[in-house]
Amino acid sequence: MPTILLLNGPNLNLLGEREQEVYGTTTLAELVGIATDAAHAHGWELEHVQSNHEGELVEAVHGARGRCAAIVLNAGAFTHYSYALADALATFAGVKVELHISNPAAREEWRHASVLAPFMTASVAGFGAAGYRFAVEGAIGKAGAGP
Amino acid sequence: MPTILLLNGPNLNLLGEREQEVYGTTTLAELVGIATDAAHAHGWELEHVQSNHEGELVEAVHGARGRCAAIVLNAGAFTHYSYALADALATFAGVKVELHISNPAAREEWRHASVLAPFMTASVAGFGAAGYRFAVEGAIGKAGAGP
Amino acid sequence: MPTILLLNGPNLNLLGEREQEVYGTTTLAELVGIATDAAHAHGWELEHVQSNHEGELVEAVHGARGRCAAIVLNAGAFTHYSYALADALATFAGVKVELHISNPAAREEWRHASVLAPFMTASVAGFGAAGYRFAVEGAIGKAGAGP
Amino acid sequence: MPTILLLNGPNLNLLGEREQEVYGTTTLAELVGIATDAAHAHGWELEHVQSNHEGELVEAVHGARGRCAAIVLNAGAFTHYSYALADALATFAGVKVELHISNPAAREEWRHASVLAPFMTASVAGFGAAGYRFAVEGAIGKAGAGP
Amino acid sequence: MPTILLLNGPNLNLLGEREQEVYGTTTLAELVGIATDAAHAHGWELEHVQSNHEGELVEAVHGARGRCAAIVLNAGAFTHYSYALADALATFAGVKVELHISNPAAREEWRHASVLAPFMTASVAGFGAAGYRFAVEGAIGKAGAGP
Amino acid sequence: MPTILLLNGPNLNLLGEREQEVYGTTTLAELVGIATDAAHAHGWELEHVQSNHEGELVEAVHGARGRCAAIVLNAGAFTHYSYALADALATFAGVKVELHISNPAAREEWRHASVLAPFMTASVAGFGAAGYRFAVEGAIGKAGAGP
Amino acid sequence: MPTILLLNGPNLNLLGEREQEVYGTTTLAELVGIATDAAHAHGWELEHVQSNHEGELVEAVHGARGRCAAIVLNAGAFTHYSYALADALATFAGVKVELHISNPAAREEWRHASVLAPFMTASVAGFGAAGYRFAVEGAIGKAGAGP
Amino acid sequence: MPTILLLNGPNLNLLGEREQEVYGTTTLAELVGIATDAAHAHGWELEHVQSNHEGELVEAVHGARGRCAAIVLNAGAFTHYSYALADALATFAGVKVELHISNPAAREEWRHASVLAPFMTASVAGFGAAGYRFAVEGAIGKAGAGP
Amino acid sequence: MPTILLLNGPNLNLLGEREQEVYGTTTLAELVGIATDAAHAHGWELEHVQSNHEGELVEAVHGARGRCAAIVLNAGAFTHYSYALADALATFAGVKVELHISNPAAREEWRHASVLAPFMTASVAGFGAAGYRFAVEGAIGKAGAGP
Amino acid sequence: MPTILLLNGPNLNLLGEREQEVYGTTTLAELVGIATDAAHAHGWELEHVQSNHEGELVEAVHGARGRCAAIVLNAGAFTHYSYALADALATFAGVKVELHISNPAAREEWRHASVLAPFMTASVAGFGAAGYRFAVEGAIGKAGAGP
Amino acid sequence: MPTILLLNGPNLNLLGEREQEVYGTTTLAELVGIATDAAHAHGWELEHVQSNHEGELVEAVHGARGRCAAIVLNAGAFTHYSYALADALATFAGVKVELHISNPAAREEWRHASVLAPFMTASVAGFGAAGYRFAVEGAIGKAGAGP
Amino acid sequence: MPTILLLNGPNLNLLGEREQEVYGTTTLAELVGIATDAAHAHGWELEHVQSNHEGELVEAVHGARGRCAAIVLNAGAFTHYSYALADALATFAGVKVELHISNPAAREEWRHASVLAPFMTASVAGFGAAGYRFAVEGAIGKAGAGP
Repeated sequence: MPTILLLNGPNLNLLGEREQEVYGTTTLAELVGIATDAAHAHGWELEHVQSNHEGELVEAVHGARGRCAAIVLNAGAFTHYSYALADALATFAGVKVELHISNPAAREEWRHASVLAPFMTASVAGFGAAGYRFAVEGAIGKAGAGP
Repeated sequence: MPTILLLNGPNLNLLGEREQEVYGTTTLAELVGIATDAAHAHGWELEHVQSNHEGELVEAVHGARGRCAAIVLNAGAFTHYSYALADALATFAGVKVELHISNPAAREEWRHASVLAPFMTASVAGFGAAGYRFAVEGAIGKAGAGP
Repeated sequence: MPTILLLNGPNLNLLGEREQEVYGTTTLAELVGIATDAAHAHGWELEHVQSNHEGELVEAVHGARGRCAAIVLNAGAFTHYSYALADALATFAGVKVELHISNPAAREEWRHASVLAPFMTASVAGFGAAGYRFAVEGAIGKAGAGP
Repeated sequence: MPTILLLNGPNLNLLGEREQEVYGTTTLAELVGIATDAAHAHGWELEHVQSNHEGELVEAVHGARGRCAAIVLNAGAFTHYSYALADALATFAGVKVELHISNPAAREEWRHASVLAPFMTASVAGFGAAGYRFAVEGAIGKAGAGP
Repeated sequence: MPTILLLNGPNLNLLGEREQEVYGTTTLAELVGIATDAAHAHGWELEHVQSNHEGELVEAVHGARGRCAAIVLNAGAFTHYSYALADALATFAGVKVELHISNPAAREEWRHASVLAPFMTASVAGFGAAGYRFAVEGAIGKAGAGP
Repeated sequence: MPTILLLNGPNLNLLGEREQEVYGTTTLAELVGIATDAAHAHGWELEHVQSNHEGELVEAVHGARGRCAAIVLNAGAFTHYSYALADALATFAGVKVELHISNPAAREEWRHASVLAPFMTASVAGFGAAGYRFAVEGAIGKAGAGP
Repeated sequence: MPTILLLNGPNLNLLGEREQEVYGTTTLAELVGIATDAAHAHGWELEHVQSNHEGELVEAVHGARGRCAAIVLNAGAFTHYSYALADALATFAGVKVELHISNPAAREEWRHASVLAPFMTASVAGFGAAGYRFAVEGAIGKAGAGP
Repeated sequence: MPTILLLNGPNLNLLGEREQEVYGTTTLAELVGIATDAAHAHGWELEHVQSNHEGELVEAVHGARGRCAAIVLNAGAFTHYSYALADALATFAGVKVELHISNPAAREEWRHASVLAPFMTASVAGFGAAGYRFAVEGAIGKAGAGP
Repeated sequence: MPTILLLNGPNLNLLGEREQEVYGTTTLAELVGIATDAAHAHGWELEHVQSNHEGELVEAVHGARGRCAAIVLNAGAFTHYSYALADALATFAGVKVELHISNPAAREEWRHASVLAPFMTASVAGFGAAGYRFAVEGAIGKAGAGP
Repeated sequence: MPTILLLNGPNLNLLGEREQEVYGTTTLAELVGIATDAAHAHGWELEHVQSNHEGELVEAVHGARGRCAAIVLNAGAFTHYSYALADALATFAGVKVELHISNPAAREEWRHASVLAPFMTASVAGFGAAGYRFAVEGAIGKAGAGP
Repeated sequence: MPTILLLNGPNLNLLGEREQEVYGTTTLAELVGIATDAAHAHGWELEHVQSNHEGELVEAVHGARGRCAAIVLNAGAFTHYSYALADALATFAGVKVELHISNPAAREEWRHASVLAPFMTASVAGFGAAGYRFAVEGAIGKAGAGP
Repeated sequence: MPTILLLNGPNLNLLGEREQEVYGTTTLAELVGIATDAAHAHGWELEHVQSNHEGELVEAVHGARGRCAAIVLNAGAFTHYSYALADALATFAGVKVELHISNPAAREEWRHASVLAPFMTASVAGFGAAGYRFAVEGAIGKAGAGP
């Protein structure tokens, strides 16, 4: 059964309580549930890692090499400066989807550019909780195993 | 029955024959079909306008004011310089989703910035044809009438 | 009887209903009325063209060559990127007044620069509806036929 | 009787003799006369201060607080770098009109940006002497006491 | 018989009367005549489209796909910002020659960069009317059907 | 008895009435009182100069040379462009503390850089009235005469 | 009893031995002592965390949410690029003081900008060890529980 | 008999063997032959200088002053930084044509700007060997001695 | 007898005591003596104004209009931002020499650009006291009354 | 016996399997072997740390202070943004060699600048596995204990 | 026997006497000796060219085409602006090593970027005389003929 | 007898005939005469080198090391990009004066910055022929052997 890795980066463990006007009231656990349901609906497994540590996210990507068919990544603020994570993603040959709960391009200037994007297959931003479902379905579709 | 307006900008009429390595082989008609099916599945109407003329897209946005609940917009190259379209979108109070077939952030430098983004609710990029379904579903969800 | 051409660019057809906190509640028809009254008061004719199409504005400028003594232009968002309109204005030898309802220099960064300005005689911004009267009177004055 | 403060900045005392091809032949006294007439015509008082000293302009703005309903300001070169004047203007709650005799946006690069603009209500530029009348009338109109 | 498409962009309809010190006194009709003669001399057909509308130029390029062997394009001001036209040209597989009557690199800063250039085969600038002959001959030569 | 010079720059004479949401309700006299008390508590004298004139601040710095052991300077907007003041500070060999009531780094872009900073010993920002006490105590401490 | 969190970032564990000409000879333990004394003097508790790991600092901020009334943060080099830490600070509703031992604005170019500043209440820099006392006192004062 | 000077800059002596996918297989000698034939066909002489030394190209331009009616210059990489050559060209009053075998505007960023262009009459780029004929014919035409 | 105006800007009153390693030990009075001697040696009068106030320097330039044949100006830090002084100099039709004791182009980045230079005839920098003699002699020579 | 510390940063644990066309097929263990052999050949010890965690690398540098004579550092992507690592290296008084397997200056723009370089003694890049030998030999040589 | 070309650029003839604190006391002759010994030790020939003339370096590269297997180049200041040399290197198919005695990335800003780097295989910097040995050994190794 | 080296760079051999409105009508020989007379008047020798070749100027500087007490350099366009010449000047320990006939800071943007300036003692610009006398006198004065 193919597997998808869902990665959530720094500060996303606070979802549901942090800045609700920007990020909504859904908790991280609920988001992971939405993503997992979407994966299961297509016969996929989903693994989840949340970390505030860049190095752990880098290593989670390493761990997915040759074992997972796709990665869905909400890198939080790392999106904008973690070239180490970018390099890690470059080593992963499967589908890679960049995910954001809000729409970074409509916020502060420094959120407009993604250093990860050149290495990503696709992106979803601004849909709140529903974005987790779209990202998973999109990744599965791109991996050639979805509907 | 709520209505969604699907807008496709310049050069998208060539989809399916133009640069297939970037944009895939699905034709515009097929993409509109995918989007329409997604709308109907949620009990929505979908109107479609494709134009290579900035002014026509501006006026299509005007026409949707007070009549449509959401706009899904693949603005093509206008994404990167049409402030007229941005101003038009600013006048539309409903949900607005920015859509791209490829992932512009992974292409030439000038495709990295979107002048429309500050006025958009959400964005989907890089999923090819499937993006049309996600964008419609996401827009409907955001409009509070979807699943 | 000398003639002045009043040009209104993209999205200005929505005046009076669009973003009233920025642009006020006066409709375009009322603004044209104010401008026409100002022209008539000085014994001038006024022609009006509104268009959301850059090409139509370019051609309206062409049509004024050798026939009108002055142009008053609210180019809307074209102010900031339409070099085609700038080139058209360069071909018009009469008085040219740049007009804005709000004060662009006090808004988003991209509204601060005008690509048209190097080719314009004068500018009026931020006076709302009254600006249409000032621009017309100023243009007539500059054309040497006003008070 | 409401009062308007007319401020003229550095080098404007030379008007009428300085660079006539740019600034025309009207003297500062004549310009103040034009502005005063415009104010009187609407039942307003006009006070005038010209100074080549940034500090005096700052203090003139301070002095207008709570006493004048509007300021018309031709800040000359201070337009482009006097953040002290900008901060002073920010403390003035009434109408503020930026005024230029020539059209700075059509001259040297460094004249294109105004550090005062974010704090101003409106602007008039390029009409020569007539601009003083428009600026006063516009300020009065904006202050809700004009025609 | 192979065909070449000659495209002239905004404001070029005024050639011969507009800014003669920059663009010379030859009219557009005469320039098209020069280009046509050059094409016929090599046994080619020449079609001509002039438009002040970006969308019409985009569609003229679309119409040339699979039907014309080469495009000669004087895009006027669109050269410097029309990414929509650039995208259209990217879909045309034949020879593409960028043409200018004056030498843009020797004029204002904003005329120095061409957003179309990355998609063009060759360029000719600054030769006035003769440039139309060189561009056509050069395009035909590049297309492998010339002398 | 060692002496500290407290300098307050343009617009700070309005403290307590100007933009209270940014600068608080404490008046300049009260702030000077706070600073004086802090100086006296450590056995220092405090002199105070407030000016809206760059030249007077420059000369106040000159006057402190060889006579005062420290300067505490709230330069207001001069912080961001007065290289003349920077040069004056470079001639003062004692302790120099940059002081701001609000936190400029969290406000408009142009308030982020200080042209004075390369010549200052230390800085305090964002503490409101209490900052005057910290700046004086810090300056005294740095001068080796404090606690 | 209210609590303040003192955070020290990367390389600050070396204080007292590292680059003494820049950072002085006081050790981190002594600095924490100074800060603790200042807190106790106002009836506050102080917790201290030093870490060279961005993720641990992020989590320390998380841990202070709803439990501490203020954070004093010397983020070291993270000041200039850790948007993850900035996002964490944005989730903390209490007082936040940025602290530096030296004056970064007077050092290398890359130390001039703080990505944390937009989310901070106040800042202290350049006072060496004494800055820890000022930052704590200032934070307590801002939190409404100090003198 | 009027004379044209053909200048070829650094690395162009390798034409025909160097990077054939960019510069084609025609040798420099053949290109000079093409240019000479074009000159002779219009009754002109052609002199040729190739040099990898900036100083020799500068002096070749000097030598053409008052003796040649036109210069055709393929400056190679000097195009992008040799202000000395630009100054030399400024001293030459005749026709000056900039020539490139490939289309620099479609290559690396640093090849997009020409420091020579402000001093040139015209330019030809991207036509390979045929460009030498166009440049010579164009120069002769501009010099008023051609067809 | 023709007259030259010598202007010294902010902080130059401290010459001889301020930063001797940069500016030397000659006092301002001695420098004025050197300049006066140079003027007298050519039969010219010399007037001197030193001010730390931008407005006074602006007015000194005004006062020289139509009365002095040349201005020698050491504007100190105003060199780098006083557009008001630049505008004043633009109104003076005689010879204008920019003077610096040190060589600003070899110091901090912000000292490299002069906003006055576009309006100056000539410049002398880095010669210390001797520069005052060269500047005066050069100004007199340029004015056509020197040797 | 003197000791050298070899540090390998993020993603380098994947060497030999990651992007072999860029980084070659040698594994990290083999590279460490090469470096160790080089150290032993000169009578030095070599310690090795690889980490994907910035904090661990910072602490490894700390641990080398006063104990190792040299550091050889392949910081991977941290090269381009880890100012924390730069600050750590600034605290290390011995020889410091920057090492890269590929030649970053010939790759993406963001790999061209090294924030570590101002604190490094020397650098080696692009030699693949052999670079580890050169870096160690070079560090030993610089430390004055090698050949 | 394979051959390596060692190129030394402008000012390197002064090595050993020029700025010894930056470049050391080894003379160029000694450096060439070190490089030659390294080449001979691997059975290679070494040719050496030093020139202060860009054109001679370009031609030395040309001369190595098809005759030498590798180039080691210390281009001195040409590193930062000689696109002519870059183009020459692009025509050389063998191994190319960029060499610097000091570490340019740790010096003035303008020494940080190398216009040659995109065309080089590898680089060595900051090792002083030893760098010549490493560069030669590295080049030989890369050429597949070394150890 | 002390010696001064006068260096004139590219295109200066044309002085007196080239662009007389910018550079005047004095020939290079006359300028050298002026400089020589100034040197002799102070008991100095003067050597002169003019070259259009960067390498020859570099070597002329080398030749002056340890033999000349001062260099006066009009580097022409090399002023703006010849880092090789800058490096050569850095090796010369005597007085170095930068000289320009016109005032580059008042001309095109690219003439505003001097890459040589950080290595020069002083500069003279805009005095035409007289500048050669000032530069020589100034250099002699700075060398401690003049008046």
